[in-house]
Order: sequence, then structure tokens, then C-alpha cells
Amino acid sequence: MKIALAQINPTVGDFRGNTAKILEFTRQAQQGGAELAVFPELAICGYPPADLLEKPAFVHRCGEALEEIAQATAQDGIAVVAGYVTPSPEGTGKHVMNSAALLRGGQVEFVQSKMLLPFYDVFDEQRYFAPAARQQICEMNGIRVALTICEDAWNDKSFWENRLYQVDPVEELMKQGAGLILNISASPWWRDKRALRREMLAAIAVRHRVPVVMVNQVGGNDSLVFDGSSLVIGPDGQVIAQAQSFEEDLIFADLDARTAECRAEKGSADETGAMLDALTLGTRDYVHKCGFRKAVVGLSGGIDSALVAAIAVRALGPENVTTLGMPSPYSSPGSIDDSRELARNLGIQFELIRIDEIFAAFNHALAGAFAGQTADITEENIQSRIRGVLLMAYSNKFSALVLTTGNKSEMSTGYCTLYGDMVGALAVIGDVFKTRVYDLCRAVNAEREVIPRNILEKPPSAELRPEQKDTDTLPPYEVLDPILEAYVEHYETPESIAAARGLDCEMVHRVVQMVERSEYKRQQAAPVLKVTPKAFGMGRRFPIAVKVQV
Amino acid sequence: MKIALAQINPTVGDFRGNTAKILEFTRQAQQGGAELAVFPELAICGYPPADLLEKPAFVHRCGEALEEIAQATAQDGIAVVAGYVTPSPEGTGKHVMNSAALLRGGQVEFVQSKMLLPFYDVFDEQRYFAPAARQQICEMNGIRVALTICEDAWNDKSFWENRLYQVDPVEELMKQGAGLILNISASPWWRDKRALRREMLAAIAVRHRVPVVMVNQVGGNDSLVFDGSSLVIGPDGQVIAQAQSFEEDLIFADLDARTAECRAEKGSADETGAMLDALTLGTRDYVHKCGFRKAVVGLSGGIDSALVAAIAVRALGPENVTTLGMPSPYSSPGSIDDSRELARNLGIQFELIRIDEIFAAFNHALAGAFAGQTADITEENIQSRIRGVLLMAYSNKFSALVLTTGNKSEMSTGYCTLYGDMVGALAVIGDVFKTRVYDLCRAVNAEREVIPRNILEKPPSAELRPEQKDTDTLPPYEVLDPILEAYVEHYETPESIAAARGLDCEMVHRVVQMVERSEYKRQQAAPVLKVTPKAFGMGRRFPIAVKVQV
Repeated sequence: MKIALAQINPTVGDFRGNTAKILEFTRQAQQGGAELAVFPELAICGYPPADLLEKPAFVHRCGEALEEIAQATAQDGIAVVAGYVTPSPEGTGKHVMNSAALLRGGQVEFVQSKMLLPFYDVFDEQRYFAPAARQQICEMNGIRVALTICEDAWNDKSFWENRLYQVDPVEELMKQGAGLILNISASPWWRDKRALRREMLAAIAVRHRVPVVMVNQVGGNDSLVFDGSSLVIGPDGQVIAQAQSFEEDLIFADLDARTAECRAEKGSADETGAMLDALTLGTRDYVHKCGFRKAVVGLSGGIDSALVAAIAVRALGPENVTTLGMPSPYSSPGSIDDSRELARNLGIQFELIRIDEIFAAFNHALAGAFAGQTADITEENIQSRIRGVLLMAYSNKFSALVLTTGNKSEMSTGYCTLYGDMVGALAVIGDVFKTRVYDLCRAVNAEREVIPRNILEKPPSAELRPEQKDTDTLPPYEVLDPILEAYVEHYETPESIAAARGLDCEMVHRVVQMVERSEYKRQQAAPVLKVTPKAFGMGRRFPIAVKVQV
Repeated sequence: MKIALAQINPTVGDFRGNTAKILEFTRQAQQGGAELAVFPELAICGYPPADLLEKPAFVHRCGEALEEIAQATAQDGIAVVAGYVTPSPEGTGKHVMNSAALLRGGQVEFVQSKMLLPFYDVFDEQRYFAPAARQQICEMNGIRVALTICEDAWNDKSFWENRLYQVDPVEELMKQGAGLILNISASPWWRDKRALRREMLAAIAVRHRVPVVMVNQVGGNDSLVFDGSSLVIGPDGQVIAQAQSFEEDLIFADLDARTAECRAEKGSADETGAMLDALTLGTRDYVHKCGFRKAVVGLSGGIDSALVAAIAVRALGPENVTTLGMPSPYSSPGSIDDSRELARNLGIQFELIRIDEIFAAFNHALAGAFAGQTADITEENIQSRIRGVLLMAYSNKFSALVLTTGNKSEMSTGYCTLYGDMVGALAVIGDVFKTRVYDLCRAVNAEREVIPRNILEKPPSAELRPEQKDTDTLPPYEVLDPILEAYVEHYETPESIAAARGLDCEMVHRVVQMVERSEYKRQQAAPVLKVTPKAFGMGRRFPIAVKVQV
């Protein structure tokens, strides 16, 4: 059987657009000689639809779109597998199921719903879906196929040390004599996820001695970036075919002939390159799927904003990116020169707007209320917030989304100003620790110097008071970032972090306190593009008004 | 058996404070002659702990605190029931359980974990907890007790038309011969919730012919306000005892003698009064549990900020509330006079800070970048954002939390400025539609005119351009609010909303579009105090970058 893996980039809720895309890919699959075109999980409505699933009209429309696809492909002699939402038959529990349909000759020939519903980190599927009560074999062109949906293939007992679920749908289906495992997925990218997926699916293929075909969604949807990287794995665990990462793709695998395409992972074989690609795709899709073309970035002369500007150019093209330099009384002249050079290297517009007069006007207006008070963090925040107002004004006037430039080290410690440098539609590098920001900049500069060396080499500073350096407030980033990673991503205790790394326990406690005390800022932050196993946002839900003693 | 219902207000994560409170209430219960003191669900760690549950140290500390309580009450001759977290015994699935322990004579005599784990709206319990595999009867002073945790009593088939779960723990326990149903809860308040709880528990009592004792948490934790309102219901469905709403309380019920206290619902018998109490408690606890005493409110001269100032005074006392008037070139002189009068009535500080000069400085700084552009919403937003910067500056300088003044009608339609009037630590009335804001103001003014009549009677206006009125942009609130309630709270379609109310379908579509297009603002909003079945925030999870066609 010749299968086409149709790795598409749907937009959530765009039934017309997604249907058209599915029909176009099906047409190409048929022209390529495929007998079956396979689309990702929830391809018809896009993943994740979140609470849109609570609207009966949304579920109804999804069923209509499936019917349209069935009708439109009725005469094409090609079968289609695609993910959609079905009303649940159960009398109790959730009203809908996450389902895969096999369409052939205008009919819905077979439906299998998802049994294992992830409900951790960014996944809320038990909030929405009733689980399938059983797994049934599907017959396709004489092959008995185990048609599974994403998580249903993520519970193999030979692969996972700690399993989340007691049942293994794949095992159930193998007992029914499946000769092929087909898995439709919406599996977001983060660091090292592609290797994990490959190893896990290879383990399943080897254990059950059947080929595995996995078709994954591609594209950015809010915080999540789906990489695609769809796979065909042979019964020996070897990759037979692999689709592009971070791009739509259509690849073919002829499982009888055992021939298939196998592409190299385009430009993003290493995880730093992949992260850059993920951030680029996440930015492009967020801006475009929100209905915008243009973005604006505030350039401080520092490395974070330089990287975000470079990513914006990769995502949107230089003609769609504007940068604003907004020096304050404490900005170094070098900052402006470096920003100009960066803009020149990127071929983008750079506007200079001084904030001195505005800052003076604020101080004047507040003089009465602040009489007798000394200058403190208040005045630093005012400068940062003036820049926020200017960026938003530019955004309003020219319909350009503001891209937020804060990194994960800052967001973790609260070393950022709410409504100041935190303004924006999307926190492009909010899940990237500062030390990794340097890695990404080096990747940007791999072919030619885009980000000026000066920006890479100067000591990090917010430049909100004379001679300010990040290290006045924070430990050096080489020390800070591993602490934050251990605390934020792995929930280690301050004591174990200090002990394992030979660090001063009091210093680690101080860092942890900064993380705890800045939760309120993160809850008002722009959506963060998730590129690690634990990002700020929906996947990390902490209360604010707490008094935690652990 | 004489039972004390210990309706406490724990702080999430404050093991020391919560333990001390539990011991103090236990002492008072014993002095009152109780043989058993019952505390709410997760009383030891506070509800909801959210992702704190993913930290092993948090779970461990919770067990230690339970042990401390057992030891400290060992000699007191009183048994204690309290909610805490236990490691899960299962080999697969989640690592912890939501449990209730019976402590007596220094021992943990009995533990029952929660079986039904809510996972809808604001509840994420399946994210954290493994469900109890079975329900067991607990013997207390010769009585066989059905010890249940919150949702475990919310699945009675005689009461609910659509049940969420297939099993009913109460039914299981009644088959084992329970003579009393004890339910420890953390059930947040919203409109009409107390009546629902009372009717539901009465139905269970009558069906099983046993008394029901429900002990509910009280207090605000971020967006949620728990009302307490703990109950004792007789086998005939009549309320035998009821604790205060929105206050800590300790009440006694002697189930042998069938005597118990029954208090009136203090000052909040009607739902408008209860809402005012809920918002007051939610504000007080948020400010205090965040470690603050003071709040600052921007007064526009309109009704929303007037109500928030009044709530702040009820919550924190007049000495802890400051208000800022920040008139722009387009503010009416009446706005300032009205604000002054309000501040005088409330006995709070009022500071006047004009924004004209700052606005001029912004316009001057932007003149180059905006050359050739006409004035539009950009300039309106700049004014609103200047006020945001001033409020935050005041907050930074004087350690006063900014209370956000936007209402649910504005947050629904996006008729508010991100980083402008949306700044703040807590959106006090963000779940209150404008028409209900008037109801609450009338409740505030019930005894004397606190909110000046002028403020109540003037037509709503943002005063960001000459002669501006809300009705320039929005339908009148009497028309708008029912549309929003149907769409936001009940997921009705625009067509059904228009048809059911005889409204122009195009106008309803326009309103719905405003709701859809402003999701990005809501995701960066301050936490909203939830007082309806569907509030913005954690209980409503919609994607931003979408193209929804339903």
C-alpha cells in the first residue's frame, strides 16, 4: 500500500481553509500514486482548539467539514484518514471525542476515537474529551491497521519507566492482528522531542515487528510550535521516511515495496538550529494567523532584542519588521550605534525616539505625590513603561504586532517590568534562558555577522540607572541559568540544587525567592513560544497569593 | 456525636499558618464540647494548590504537617478530620491523591481519598490527582460515616440530569450502611451556588435518609472566592445548621440530640449582597495573602472605579486606600468633582495628577514617526496607558497594589486598553457585567449615599476624545449584557441569541466579533475575581491565533 503522509499546517477553527488544504494535499497525494492520504490529529479543526470544543456549533461544523471532504474525494479512488471531533455516545462524562475517520468513496468507513487523553503540562484533553471505550482494527487495502491517535501510542511498557495509563491501545490492537501502526498526531516540538519520538516509535515497531507511520501536525498555534517531522519506521526500528521539520510536507511510503523518501532534517539537525526554526515558525504563524503581516521590536542595544529582531526578519521578511530605539538618559551611545548596525545588517527600518522629555514630564507630574521620596525602582520602571507605551503606539498606528524581547532568565526572576519591556503580542524568546540566547545568536551569525559582535560581547545591562549591570541584581547567567532550569523545569529544591552544584545555599534561596515573588508578572505576560519541557504559560499553573514554605 | 464544623481560611502553601489555625480551631471545638472537629478539603495546604502539587517537597511537607496536627491533638480527646495530600499507591498515573484523614489519639486512624476529580471550568484535578480506587466506611464514635471529599457528593443520579461520572461514591458508601454523610469541600462561590449546594445536599439526605454535614473552605485564593456557608442538613432535607458566608466560623451540631446552630446568612441573603461580600473578601485576601496592606485605584469619575474604590474600603479600610484622579484634556470637570466627593464619602485619600503635559510629550516624541498620520485610537490608548504608568508608579513607590476597575462588559468586548486601564494586580469587577455594576452600587448605597448620584446617573464614557460616549462603540448595556451573557457564559450562537431576543442579527454578530478579537487582551489581564459560572481567566481557555467560522 502506498501511503501519503500529509503534514499540514491548519489554523484553529478555520474549517474552510483547513478543508481546502486537506483537499489540495489529497489531490497531490493521489497524483503521486498514493492509495491513502493521512492527515494529523484534529486536522479538520486544528490543534489545540481548547474551549472552542465546548461550543456545540463548533463540533457540529467539524462534522460537516468531514462530510464535505468525504464527498469531495468520493470519486478520486484514494482513501483519507483525518482527525476531527465527534459527539460522544456515552450517557455520562464529556460530550465529545477526539477521533480519526477513514473516508473512502464518499463514506465514513471507519472511526476510531482516542483512548489516552493527556492532561499534564499544556495538555488538557480530559477537560474536553471522553475516552474511547475500546480499540478496533481497521481494514485498509487488505492490511489490518492499528489506527491510533497521538498519546495512544505513548504508553508502551517496554519504553516508559513510569507509565501514565494502565492500558496500552497499541498492545490491544496488536492482539487483534494489526500489520501496521498508523498514528495521527499533534505533538508539539520542544528540545530533544524529535529524538524521543523517534526512539519511542522505533521501540514500538521493534517490539511488535510492524511498520509505524506517524503523521504530525506542523505550524505554530499560540504558544505551541508543531514541528511535523512525520515518520515511517520499519519493523526493524529503522527510519524509512521522514518529512521536513517546521514546514508543510507531503511524503510517500510504499510499504509493500519498502521504498520511501527519507529527507535530511533540513538545516535543523542540531537542537539549536531546530530551536531557531521553531521560534521562527512560531512567530510567523502567530503574526499571520492573528491576521497581521508586520511586527515591531524595541531595540535596546542588547542581545535579546537583537535576536528577536533577527527571528522576526526570518519569520516575516525584512520589509515587515520595524525596530524602535528608545534611549533614556542612562543609555550608552554605543547602544544606539549597535542597534543601527543591527538594523542595517538585517535590512530593516530603525526609528529613534528619545524618551528623556516624556520621562521628565512624568517626574514633573508626580512631583507632588512623590514629594520627599527618594528615587528607586519606580523611576526605572517608568522608563521601561514609557518604552512600552511607545511600542504599543507604533503598533496601534501601523498595525504591527509588538514582539516581546524578554528571555526566560528574566521572566523566571522577574527581572523585567510588567507593562514595560514585557509588553507585546508574543514573547518570542520567553522560554529561552540567557545562556541559550547566545547560542541562538551564534546560529544566526553562522553564515555572516548579522548581530554585531559588540552586542554579543557587552555585559548585559538594562541601562535604567547609571552604570547598571544585570549582575548588580542577579548572579552571572552561567550560574543563574542552571539554577533556574533545575528549579523551574525539574522542580528541584533549593537545597538539592545547591548541594548538587556546590553552590551557596543562601544564594540559591535568593534566586528561588525571586522566582516565587514574580509569578504575578508571568500571569500577565504575552504568550510565550514553548521550546522546553516546561515553559511559562498554560503548561505551568502556579497560584499567586501564596505563602509557600518548601 | 457533637461535631464542630471548622470553616477556616487557609493560605495556599502556608503550612505553618494553616497548621496553627487548625490547632486553634480544634482547641475551640474541644472547649465547645465537640467530639470531632471537621476541616475543609486540602485544609492543610490550602485550595487550590495547582502545580505546587508537582513538587515532591510540597507533598512531603503536607504529610509532615498532618503528623504535627495528630501529635498536637493526641491528648485532647477530640478527633480531627482534615484534607491533605497523600502519595498515590498506584504504579501508573498521577503521583498524589486528594485525601481526608481522621486523626485520633495521635494516630492517623483512617484515610479516604477523593474519587471524582473535577476537570472543567477552573478545576484541573485530573491534572494532579489519581482517583481513589474504592470508598470505605469510616467508624467514628460508633457511627458509620461516609467520609467524602467535595465532588464525591456531586454526582447523585436523582439530582443531576446529566452526570459527569458513572460512579456515585455516596451511593457506594450508603450500601455499606453509612449513618452520616460527612463532606469536606473547597467549593468556590458564584452566583446562585449556595442554593444549588443546599438543594443538592438536601436531595442526597432525603434520598438516603441520613444527615449530611458539609464543611467548606472560606476565603479568597487568587480568582476564586470560597464562601464557607458550611451546612448540616437533616434526613428530612431541612437545614439544621449553617455557618456564616464569607467569614471564618466554627459551629456545632449535636446529631444525637438534633440540636445545632442555625445562623442567618449575614447581610448577604440576596445574591447581590453576596456578590458584594464575595468581591470584598476576594480583594482583601488577595491583597493580604500577597503580603500587602494598601491599594490604589484610579478614579475616572465613572461608576466602575467608584464601585472598586468602595469595595477596596470595605476590604482594606479607608486608611489603606488611595485614589488617583488623572484627568486628560477630554475629561469633564464634573469627573474630578465627582471623584473628590466619592473619596470624601469614603474617607480616603484622593490625589490629582494631570496627564496633559505627559500626553503632549508623547505626541512630540512620536511626531517624526507619525508624520502624515491622522489621530485615531492610538492617541486614545496613549492617554489610557499614561494613567497605567502613573498608577504603577504610585504602586511601586508606596507598596500599594493597583486594583483594576474594568467590568465584564468591557473585558468581553475589548472596550478597554491593554496596559492602560487594564493594569493592576486584581480585576475586582472583571466578572461583573455593567448592568450588574449598577446593582452593586445600589447595594453599596443602601444605607447612605457613598457613591454620588452624579456618578450613577451620567452616561458612561471613556472621556478619551471630545464628547465620547460608550454607546458610540457599543450597543446600550441593557442590550449588550444579555448578548454577552448568552455568548460568553452559555456558548449560544449569534443566530440563536438574535432569534431568542428579537435582536438584529448583524448587531449580535458585531458584538460577537468584538469578543473574539479581544481574546489577546484577556490573556494578559489581571486575575479576575470569579463570581459567575463562567469568568474570564483559568476557567475559560480560548486560543488567540484562530479563524473561527461558527
